[in-house]
Amino acid sequence: MLQHAPTLTRLVGELKKLPGIGERTAFRLAFHLLKTRHTMTSLAEALLAVQERVRACSVCFALTEQDPCPLCSGQRDTRTICVVETSQDLLALERSNAFQGAYHVLQGAISPLHGVNPESLRIAELLERVKAGGVEEVVIATNFTVEGETTALYLARQLKPLGVKVTRLAHGIPLGSDIEFVDPATVQWALKGRSEL
Amino acid sequence: MLQHAPTLTRLVGELKKLPGIGERTAFRLAFHLLKTRHTMTSLAEALLAVQERVRACSVCFALTEQDPCPLCSGQRDTRTICVVETSQDLLALERSNAFQGAYHVLQGAISPLHGVNPESLRIAELLERVKAGGVEEVVIATNFTVEGETTALYLARQLKPLGVKVTRLAHGIPLGSDIEFVDPATVQWALKGRSEL
Repeated sequence: MLQHAPTLTRLVGELKKLPGIGERTAFRLAFHLLKTRHTMTSLAEALLAVQERVRACSVCFALTEQDPCPLCSGQRDTRTICVVETSQDLLALERSNAFQGAYHVLQGAISPLHGVNPESLRIAELLERVKAGGVEEVVIATNFTVEGETTALYLARQLKPLGVKVTRLAHGIPLGSDIEFVDPATVQWALKGRSEL
Repeated sequence: MLQHAPTLTRLVGELKKLPGIGERTAFRLAFHLLKTRHTMTSLAEALLAVQERVRACSVCFALTEQDPCPLCSGQRDTRTICVVETSQDLLALERSNAFQGAYHVLQGAISPLHGVNPESLRIAELLERVKAGGVEEVVIATNFTVEGETTALYLARQLKPLGVKVTRLAHGIPLGSDIEFVDPATVQWALKGRSEL
């Protein structure tokens, strides 16, 4: 049947390109969409709307529909800039409600193996923002992976000569976890960073 | 950030409507699509193409882009009609390469609890096909669920008075399975249906 429905084959192919979606799931999704035809149009429209309207902010490079983004043009404390790898990370930090400063989205992390050099990221733009003045602290919130740590070290080395305070998110035991099951490296960091009660 | 990107919120909402896709996966997919912008357009186009072109065949009600579908207008043996619940089931049977007859897609199974009565399905059309003559056997390949079995029994009762042979797919141990772990009801069916070597 499918060989006679090339558009369906194409839809399955497109769905398969998504992360975590294999052949079977792609089929299931395609047939589900066919059953509820109105969702197909609304999904297509939603995709085209995002494609057309969502851009990177020209100041902080977060995804936005307005430029500069509401975070940059709003009431945020621009003396502190939090540097993240992606807009998803920004979202996670915003959900914590613990940060009132501005952001800077690098759009990735340094990874020479994958061809991502400092020049491929928004590092030059970050340095420009700091050089423009008014920034007192840069909080580096890149991921705690090899790439993220490399990026953090690289940034620290570039930022410190500009006379700005450079900090890093704290390592430690995640909330609600059983110390028994936490990996030794994290426990080590948690001990080093212990604070008085 | 998201509250300032309504199109992104809408896309996440649309993705969440898909089966097996929750909030987190919807976010992951939306951000993945944003990263690879060309996939967003091609997915939207694929959706609209399917929406526009894929229809149910007017003879067997399988999904198709031509009417009647290639299976109905082709070289298939129309003396045997295999009745399935959905086009996905048709596809699974076709993959087995063991059936050369025609199909009939019911577009569901009888389930009064979900408001699906025999009238909601393509049962009248199946009976018409059989009454039109030339059909010798109807193979009922509805699922082995309560709804599928109910539909099979209902169909058998409607079809037998028309003088046609009504058969059902065999129950038994699936290939490659360990008898130790097969449920007792299946083992019971497998014993009943045993054949001489």
